[in-house]
Amino acid sequence: PDRGLLTRAQERLDRLTKPQGSLGRLEELAAQYSMITGELKPAAPRGAVFTFAADHGVAMEGVSAYPREVTRQMVLNFLRGGAGVNVLARHAGAEVRVVDIGVAYDFEVAPGLIHKKIMPGTNNFLLGPAMSREQAERAVLVGAELATEAVEGGIGLIGTGDMGIGNTTASSAITAVMTGRPVADVTGRGTGIDEAAHARKVAVIEQALARHRPNRMDAMDVLSKVGGLEIAGLAGLMLGAAAARVPVVLDGFIAGAAALIAVALQPRCREYLIASHRSVERGHQALLDHLHLTPLLDLDLRLGEGTGACLGMSLVVAAVKIMTEMATFGEAGVSERDM
Amino acid sequence: PDRGLLTRAQERLDRLTKPQGSLGRLEELAAQYSMITGELKPAAPRGAVFTFAADHGVAMEGVSAYPREVTRQMVLNFLRGGAGVNVLARHAGAEVRVVDIGVAYDFEVAPGLIHKKIMPGTNNFLLGPAMSREQAERAVLVGAELATEAVEGGIGLIGTGDMGIGNTTASSAITAVMTGRPVADVTGRGTGIDEAAHARKVAVIEQALARHRPNRMDAMDVLSKVGGLEIAGLAGLMLGAAAARVPVVLDGFIAGAAALIAVALQPRCREYLIASHRSVERGHQALLDHLHLTPLLDLDLRLGEGTGACLGMSLVVAAVKIMTEMATFGEAGVSERDM
Repeated sequence: PDRGLLTRAQERLDRLTKPQGSLGRLEELAAQYSMITGELKPAAPRGAVFTFAADHGVAMEGVSAYPREVTRQMVLNFLRGGAGVNVLARHAGAEVRVVDIGVAYDFEVAPGLIHKKIMPGTNNFLLGPAMSREQAERAVLVGAELATEAVEGGIGLIGTGDMGIGNTTASSAITAVMTGRPVADVTGRGTGIDEAAHARKVAVIEQALARHRPNRMDAMDVLSKVGGLEIAGLAGLMLGAAAARVPVVLDGFIAGAAALIAVALQPRCREYLIASHRSVERGHQALLDHLHLTPLLDLDLRLGEGTGACLGMSLVVAAVKIMTEMATFGEAGVSERDM
Repeated sequence: PDRGLLTRAQERLDRLTKPQGSLGRLEELAAQYSMITGELKPAAPRGAVFTFAADHGVAMEGVSAYPREVTRQMVLNFLRGGAGVNVLARHAGAEVRVVDIGVAYDFEVAPGLIHKKIMPGTNNFLLGPAMSREQAERAVLVGAELATEAVEGGIGLIGTGDMGIGNTTASSAITAVMTGRPVADVTGRGTGIDEAAHARKVAVIEQALARHRPNRMDAMDVLSKVGGLEIAGLAGLMLGAAAARVPVVLDGFIAGAAALIAVALQPRCREYLIASHRSVERGHQALLDHLHLTPLLDLDLRLGEGTGACLGMSLVVAAVKIMTEMATFGEAGVSERDM
């Protein structure tokens, strides 16, 4: 992105009828949006949240509070509009695009579902790699292509969403490898597991990392050995959006793990990312620190699906409107500061 | 409010297709909304932000970075829809109601302005009381009546806004008295004054408090001696909204000072208040602590006008929609947790 636009956008913001900088992070967001898109008076963008769904072989190890079939059940809930992400996307004026990139179920009749299944769930990474390198690459490509198509179709703001029973386990594994932090420091309660299940979750990840020795200098190696298909799709979505100069609003912990992969694959991608919220999930702060991202919201969310991203997207649109709809001092005939 | 409704609202929230509590503060907000309104399946409320404008005699002491005429200029900007609060209210789907409760200017032709002027600006409280007790009471009544009328007209969510060059000085004075904190601890930079002006601002407040000795056990005494007309109007707005069982979303520091007065006048009013954001203004945290309110947002805002309230109102509406639009586990055929 063109950093000169940051300055020019801030100059415009400083002419608006408000004390300079008084809209704080909304002003930063507006300037970032200008830098990313290259526009100083952008139209309020149309937003879409991509909710990638996939199953995880590691869910067999008792690392989640919910049974595996919840992944497919929730996909159907998304398609009917009854899930949290549907409600918050409608509220934010964004659409939800639901992608089956690896659910362990054959959706025969599911209007609205984007069929991009790479495989019916990953393999249990306690026993072997979650997927092959080639499968991980194909899943990344799916995400990148969906971003490209969306932008061609007029989408100017992309949110990330995810559904996959077991996916905090994969995300903690990725976070531990990519940030170099101990597994126990970046592994949380997910959907709400008890103490014993949490200890099991940590042990499963530690054993998997000891067995597969993923190479943190090779993000595709990490992704394929201990990642997930929805995480791969999200990483690709970020790369595709960045290439098309469209900002990506990250949801919570799963999106953050995908961002670790995307930024490792293409470091410049980071400037296109906006962290919507700080999740309750242990490990999220560590990856945000690693990515040098400061979340907009801190509302104790831990649902996923793209719910936090929707709230963040609404703030991005608000920031764009501030830049483009507010009157300047000159237009409004308001006196500027006198000291 | 009926605290039993908090439990019943949470029971409903727990049946929705998400891990219990996973929408964090949105769930708390939804339950609080139910408790306040007495409804378990409330419709998404229509919102209105009341932006009270007034001048401050103490502005003559050089405590603001902007000249006094900015108050009236900004009122005209609000009426034309070009200010920050207009942009963010439109974004949030709320309307802005602009009230002249004490601007030092005679608005002859100003369509849309609610004329409720008590006096053309307060007196300089360095020299004498800001207003008489009777004037303060009348200003509180204006706010209460506007809330009552709004609720009768179908408004279900009220936001607070303010405009008044010099009003952080009055708000710091009120905060110092009501919280018992030293003036310097609760006096900030307002619209952006320099070190010398800040020292002057602290000294002016300290001298005024030493001269008038406002009685913290008598909120009307504090309000009349070192308050402001828009602060009085906002306090009344809160009391009127609470009486009508409608939640009030507070903007920043000025709203917080008004809340200190409103809660002192009627302690039960506190349960109807929602703090939208943590302002940059020094003193805001102290008054939030005193009121036991935790803000929803922390976006480094310090504009006022009701801008932060608009963002908070959008979150309240989102929370209400979560409670009423999401599918339950039963409706969606989603399995509940198995451990």
